[in-house]
Amino acid sequence: MKLHFLGTGSSYPTTKRGVSATALQHDDGSVWLFDCGEGTQIQAQKVAISKKKITNIFITHLHGDHIFGLPGLLCTISSQMGLTEEDIRNKGAPVVDIFGPLGLNKYIIASLTLSHSPLVFQFRVHELIPEDVQYPEGNEDVKNDVSLQTSHPSQLPGTCIKATADSFGNLLWQLKDDDRWCVAAGWIHHRVPTFGFVIREKERPGTLDKEKLLALGIKPGPLYGQLKGGKSLTTEDGRTVTPDMVLGPPIPGRTVVILGDTSDASPLAHLVQGCDVLVHEATHDNSLKDKALEFGHSTPLQAAAFAKAIGAKTLLLNHFSQRYVPASKETSETEDSITLLEEQALSAVAGTSIHVQCADDLFVYNIPSQTRNVTLS
Amino acid sequence: MKLHFLGTGSSYPTTKRGVSATALQHDDGSVWLFDCGEGTQIQAQKVAISKKKITNIFITHLHGDHIFGLPGLLCTISSQMGLTEEDIRNKGAPVVDIFGPLGLNKYIIASLTLSHSPLVFQFRVHELIPEDVQYPEGNEDVKNDVSLQTSHPSQLPGTCIKATADSFGNLLWQLKDDDRWCVAAGWIHHRVPTFGFVIREKERPGTLDKEKLLALGIKPGPLYGQLKGGKSLTTEDGRTVTPDMVLGPPIPGRTVVILGDTSDASPLAHLVQGCDVLVHEATHDNSLKDKALEFGHSTPLQAAAFAKAIGAKTLLLNHFSQRYVPASKETSETEDSITLLEEQALSAVAGTSIHVQCADDLFVYNIPSQTRNVTLS
Repeated sequence: MKLHFLGTGSSYPTTKRGVSATALQHDDGSVWLFDCGEGTQIQAQKVAISKKKITNIFITHLHGDHIFGLPGLLCTISSQMGLTEEDIRNKGAPVVDIFGPLGLNKYIIASLTLSHSPLVFQFRVHELIPEDVQYPEGNEDVKNDVSLQTSHPSQLPGTCIKATADSFGNLLWQLKDDDRWCVAAGWIHHRVPTFGFVIREKERPGTLDKEKLLALGIKPGPLYGQLKGGKSLTTEDGRTVTPDMVLGPPIPGRTVVILGDTSDASPLAHLVQGCDVLVHEATHDNSLKDKALEFGHSTPLQAAAFAKAIGAKTLLLNHFSQRYVPASKETSETEDSITLLEEQALSAVAGTSIHVQCADDLFVYNIPSQTRNVTLS
Repeated sequence: MKLHFLGTGSSYPTTKRGVSATALQHDDGSVWLFDCGEGTQIQAQKVAISKKKITNIFITHLHGDHIFGLPGLLCTISSQMGLTEEDIRNKGAPVVDIFGPLGLNKYIIASLTLSHSPLVFQFRVHELIPEDVQYPEGNEDVKNDVSLQTSHPSQLPGTCIKATADSFGNLLWQLKDDDRWCVAAGWIHHRVPTFGFVIREKERPGTLDKEKLLALGIKPGPLYGQLKGGKSLTTEDGRTVTPDMVLGPPIPGRTVVILGDTSDASPLAHLVQGCDVLVHEATHDNSLKDKALEFGHSTPLQAAAFAKAIGAKTLLLNHFSQRYVPASKETSETEDSITLLEEQALSAVAGTSIHVQCADDLFVYNIPSQTRNVTLS
């Protein structure tokens, strides 16, 4: 499982750095995309990502630098799928699920219909309904009408996802829950309703000990799957074999957290304790804290403080003001390098085991598989 | 006056070639932009164009590869203007005029309002109302409601521009008519209502002959302007000086024609006879004529035939399928170079004086000033 940082700049794209887009590439090559600023489809051409393998798109908030690449990307996914009408009749059209705040559907439908864009795949828009607390004072006017009517020929009905609260009042939007993944969103402070996404991989059964199985007289075949699925079996000579006799320890799932723009992510802290990877914005360096806060953004110090508070193992910074020059380029006397931000975050986590890195454009982070820490008795 | 080809690819942007956007840069640095595909603002950073000098934007049609860069560009123009509230109180906000087919306003307003994008400048959207003949059979459903309500805080009321017909039934949409410019649109065949823009510079007074003026005892000052403005004057010693005595021949205006996608531009032929520059698409090479026509596009042969029919002095081709490799790059065995298209157009104009060129990304065409052909008597 890899994270590809396709665009890590804030506000507007430049020739040196794109705007927000992060791709989570699964082992089977399928891709979940988080945010889609203008030019995301160009950035995706620079890395080993097949646009037609994008199955899910998650939008943290509706600011232009996070969504203006979405209509074009959808059109290009469609043209690159290379599906004929016969393919679709025989196999059905692929479906792309798109999650994001209320208003996203209206934006997608207006863009696709007014531009007369047909799509060969089908899509569903699932809108997260913000809570009142997410509308900053004076910004109540950004509330939009719920608009989940299906009005594009390729659109399937989506869902309205409302928050649920636990007994402490902590809010959670539940997006997915299947055999492999549990995906939820929590809200974070910004100038408009903004979410962070929590991708939790479920624990998987351990590896089968093939030598032990053969010693028990069980040959490769469907029985292996039965044991891996947690069911015991009886051998021909009458012995009972339970899964724990032949399976290694379960493989723990990984938790990846990808936040939108924020000046304070604490409202979703309850969802992300001990996560493996935290992607947190750091728009300005510590000396510009006031400016960062004024516009709903963070500094490396704030991002690091949040990573420490939740016990994240790895902190990856993104969403840099375009004034910070990529580490690979020379800076002039009046410019600051992105390394300034990285150094500030590193200082802030000194003495902890948190791994910190600035995830500039085209950076790839390989999310390591976990092995359970076994306490020897 | 220069044409900057910011994006000359069709369908989707790549790392090698952007999608439709052409900038007409005036001598004072102000810019009129024609179409604005995704990534136009990134392309504009590669050339000597200041985004905040864009005063007029013209959209040929509403396909995504011509408009998906517009919301982001408007946001970036705003942030780069660097205007404070005080500046605006003192000097007023600059105004950007945007012209394009019916539906453009709805697209702009949906994109800007749903993305919570404030703008420091003001803008007006002027929608060209297509005629019934522009909706290809079976595509009547692309008609949109007129939607010129002002619904963005920075928006001023725009106009609905309807076609007028001359006595031959030729259609014309009149966009601008001032001291310096006359700008009109005509319709061309494509899959959706599509326009071509005709920018006609008005004839300017000739150069003042300063030696002659001094000999007549007229010193530099307001009287020079009076003569240049076409008014006669009387000198102190009672002689009458008429403008034709001291002015060189009038400087003819130039005519630049920028078309949208088309399989047949003949409906606007009546507007563009003898133009100086014709920008015409050539999406596919001559061998793919059927494919070009099926999707409402042209080949170099068609573009050249139109240039010959209207007597254009220069033909610049754009809107290339991304399968044609830029001339500066090497082609593999399975690829064709853009030079194939240029050669096909050159063959088609052989024997004429038409100058032909493929205007690939970042090509700059300097539009020469005209001097009137004076017939010696």
